[in-house]
Amino acid sequence: MKESFPLSEVYRLLESGPVVLLTTVRAERPNVMPMSWHLMMEFTPPLVGCVVSDRNYSFASLKAGRECVINILTVELAKIVVACGNVSGRLVDKFKNFGLTPQPATSVKAPLIAECYASLECKVVETKLVTKYNIFVLEVVQAWVDPKRKRPRTIHHQGEGEFMVAGRTLHLPSPKTSLGGK
Amino acid sequence: MKESFPLSEVYRLLESGPVVLLTTVRAERPNVMPMSWHLMMEFTPPLVGCVVSDRNYSFASLKAGRECVINILTVELAKIVVACGNVSGRLVDKFKNFGLTPQPATSVKAPLIAECYASLECKVVETKLVTKYNIFVLEVVQAWVDPKRKRPRTIHHQGEGEFMVAGRTLHLPSPKTSLGGK
Repeated sequence: MKESFPLSEVYRLLESGPVVLLTTVRAERPNVMPMSWHLMMEFTPPLVGCVVSDRNYSFASLKAGRECVINILTVELAKIVVACGNVSGRLVDKFKNFGLTPQPATSVKAPLIAECYASLECKVVETKLVTKYNIFVLEVVQAWVDPKRKRPRTIHHQGEGEFMVAGRTLHLPSPKTSLGGK
Repeated sequence: MKESFPLSEVYRLLESGPVVLLTTVRAERPNVMPMSWHLMMEFTPPLVGCVVSDRNYSFASLKAGRECVINILTVELAKIVVACGNVSGRLVDKFKNFGLTPQPATSVKAPLIAECYASLECKVVETKLVTKYNIFVLEVVQAWVDPKRKRPRTIHHQGEGEFMVAGRTLHLPSPKTSLGGK
């Protein structure tokens, strides 16, 4: 079960670059799309940039609905991720098709995915570069994490069917929260 | 020794979210900064978005010089990454201080870092959101990779002094190059 997670800590979930499942709603029907073109843009409030191609069914939902949920997953869902990326929400109800369980969010219409260990409810706050680059800026307004998942084995896309699975953790204390980038 | 690497494959180096060292030049002097707030934005030509805080010495170099090199590193350099992020290029020549070796690039003034297994020469192509979000859009114009490094152990920042080290590789063949995000 997921619990509310501090917004100021959201960067710790995304900065490592995991594959996520993006959920949106269109015509009352939820859809889900794998994504790994995302970056942190601000700590507080947490801002996330993400590129969603205008060839994807989710693009129009995100542009019109201006809401989504970023669901962070672990290696157990890897095959579902690949399957989700190879079929369009135009044709298939991916939740039903792939056995994913939608859960209601508190601040947006898009659902959380029960099988993912963390979910971030987001509102679109900037669309200036959407036409040229398909990049949306999102503000995370509510975060949920399963506190029992201490070392989630996230997956990280490397192209051509390869995914890197999160390995060991290195502790290197630093006086700064940021790496230097911000 | 690094060799020229196809630009259409650059996404395979960055999409997994590794910590990188960004090099820039200011007043003829090179500087280096750790970064992990970056994302892929296009396959060809390869576009990369990155957030560099206006509180960082590298920000002005990037804004004025409009050039940089993204150097992708492995776990052997983790301590140097943390050290680099805790001192400013205003005060210290980080190349000398941390034993990094600058190498001339072919298309930009910023140097490659010899100790990093891959280096991407970049030009700034979009600055519309720099004032508001500190995000630059870069085009990779020349890429270099050490072909002997088959399974580079990249590191992925998780905040609070924690880094995830790249683990095993999962092969899940997919008909698409993209995950679904683009």
